Amino acid sequence: MTTNAYGAHAGDKPLEPMLIQRRAPGPHDVQIDIAYCGVCHSDLHTVRSEWGGTRYPCVPGHEIVGQVSAVGEAVTRFGVGDTVGVGCMVDSCQQCAACGDGLEQYCERGFTGTYNGRTQDPPGHTLGGYSERIVVSERFVLKIGHPAEQLAAVAPLLCAGITTYSPLRHWNVGPGQKVGIVGIGGLGHMGLKLARAMGAHVVAFTTSESKRQDARDLGAHEVVNSRNADEVKQHAGSFDFILDTVAASHDLDQLTALLKRDGTLCLVGVPEHPHPTPNIGQLIFGRRSIAGSLIGGIAETQEMLDFCAEHGIVSEIEMIPVQRIDEAYERMQRSDVKYRFVIDCASLVD
Amino acid sequence: MTTNAYGAHAGDKPLEPMLIQRRAPGPHDVQIDIAYCGVCHSDLHTVRSEWGGTRYPCVPGHEIVGQVSAVGEAVTRFGVGDTVGVGCMVDSCQQCAACGDGLEQYCERGFTGTYNGRTQDPPGHTLGGYSERIVVSERFVLKIGHPAEQLAAVAPLLCAGITTYSPLRHWNVGPGQKVGIVGIGGLGHMGLKLARAMGAHVVAFTTSESKRQDARDLGAHEVVNSRNADEVKQHAGSFDFILDTVAASHDLDQLTALLKRDGTLCLVGVPEHPHPTPNIGQLIFGRRSIAGSLIGGIAETQEMLDFCAEHGIVSEIEMIPVQRIDEAYERMQRSDVKYRFVIDCASLVD
Repeated sequence: MTTNAYGAHAGDKPLEPMLIQRRAPGPHDVQIDIAYCGVCHSDLHTVRSEWGGTRYPCVPGHEIVGQVSAVGEAVTRFGVGDTVGVGCMVDSCQQCAACGDGLEQYCERGFTGTYNGRTQDPPGHTLGGYSERIVVSERFVLKIGHPAEQLAAVAPLLCAGITTYSPLRHWNVGPGQKVGIVGIGGLGHMGLKLARAMGAHVVAFTTSESKRQDARDLGAHEVVNSRNADEVKQHAGSFDFILDTVAASHDLDQLTALLKRDGTLCLVGVPEHPHPTPNIGQLIFGRRSIAGSLIGGIAETQEMLDFCAEHGIVSEIEMIPVQRIDEAYERMQRSDVKYRFVIDCASLVD
Repeated sequence: MTTNAYGAHAGDKPLEPMLIQRRAPGPHDVQIDIAYCGVCHSDLHTVRSEWGGTRYPCVPGHEIVGQVSAVGEAVTRFGVGDTVGVGCMVDSCQQCAACGDGLEQYCERGFTGTYNGRTQDPPGHTLGGYSERIVVSERFVLKIGHPAEQLAAVAPLLCAGITTYSPLRHWNVGPGQKVGIVGIGGLGHMGLKLARAMGAHVVAFTTSESKRQDARDLGAHEVVNSRNADEVKQHAGSFDFILDTVAASHDLDQLTALLKRDGTLCLVGVPEHPHPTPNIGQLIFGRRSIAGSLIGGIAETQEMLDFCAEHGIVSEIEMIPVQRIDEAYERMQRSDVKYRFVIDCASLVD
């Protein structure tokens, strides 16, 4: 099935219109007409091969929402016309302990990414959501319960939302707890909304004084400028959990010092250049931890979408036609977006 | 009360005999005639002021066992002649959340160390177990249930034992789990015995090929030479918990790679020179943690002593008269001790 898409033929080439092939839906497949696709930093890193290992042509995009346009004969949970989403994964081994626990993101054989993953479909690797249509195994398709007019703003929940929801849930964030969200960008702004909805006392950490009011509007009870050491120190030893969404190299000791005994600093971004080595004494004197967390499993992604629908939570977005993707990447790199670009996929067929 | 002791008058002076004053037992105090005192790396670091902040004269020693020789009028849990122990702490604020939780080692105002801690007693700082006698508040005195002939080998449980027991318990080590113990020295050899007694499958990591058989004798089911990358890699992704007792700077990535999803690498030593900065990707892809842990609370120390008495666990020791302490320090620095020096405190009054 020939499908309009937008992607790159090499790491040093701009994204451009291309035609790709999607498989005909098999018995367990759901075919989705993509309405919107969020723009994630990983898209940019991958399409430019900044992490290495990119297969071309590369069509990025793993924050996908749209309508079901066909289903395989064995599909039971979806029907034509349903509003659905697809996140960062389209397959996993389904046999390892992680898959058995519903944690496909930690599949011991490696999950199949929505783009740049290995597949038997042509051209041998997966092609993502900057496209008109996608065909995905029912098991990796999510139901969306938000009102139709929020659909574009739901797209970023599929990566930015679940990446913050999963650790907040795993470390049992809730009422009576003080939680920090570090970095108020695509991920962090979701972290603020989610932690607030979970009932925690939420403190935003940002290096942008201009985001102070925004952070409050997004759900923070308090906002701290990380560059102001005195402001930071007032929170020493007071946090149950800190979710650090900043992928750039930065000082972790400033943050571990803010944890209570038994508190956890959870990182969700892999820094391009390593963080300065953390002070181990600060972990020992307080039994504190530094942990990492990766997106979330499919069942938890559905739980997150349902939680967000119930609490009226969506992403703050700026909609663009796909033709403006280069400009969007450039602005995203300068953090000049409040807070996620979403591609209107109708622009692919204009 | 004038008491024979052994200590140093300055960081660059050798340890020598000295007379110190102990307070007369107050209503809640227990006076202990010290039989044996273990020799911990911290003793050496402190007496030589390698961590800074040492107050002189300095009398080290926080692995203390002996007999009660007097009790204050309000003391209810101990009587003259009882066999007791004192570990790393002799006081804490008793008012903060940590003290309320029985975790005095994390006292928010800082616990009072058995030596080099602030006290109202002369000379204004605490003096440790390289001495004939000590007076300690009942609350910080432990009961010892081991047979009398094991008493010297019980002493190291008060620091090396609890420092390894506490994290093993906190992270719920038990049957069905695979646990690594890194570094087979004073702490690590206790970690092997304790983890084995808790029912885990225990793997020892050492850089000393000569310790291979010893590690098995101490309780390891398997022994890995950390310098042999191939041997290490065979254990990739298989550990529930790794207790790292090595205080020297070393590669943590080799160890986090061995953890299962949701596994924890727990460090109990503060390195003099920082460890190389850990790979955050290895934490994120597996939701792994790097944590720290400090000795243990008083209630947990009693639990550990009872557990050890029940399971016949003591330290492997080499007994010395206090006059050989310099030689012991020198050998300890070269890891030439199997596995803990213990001072026979009778030598103080010979």
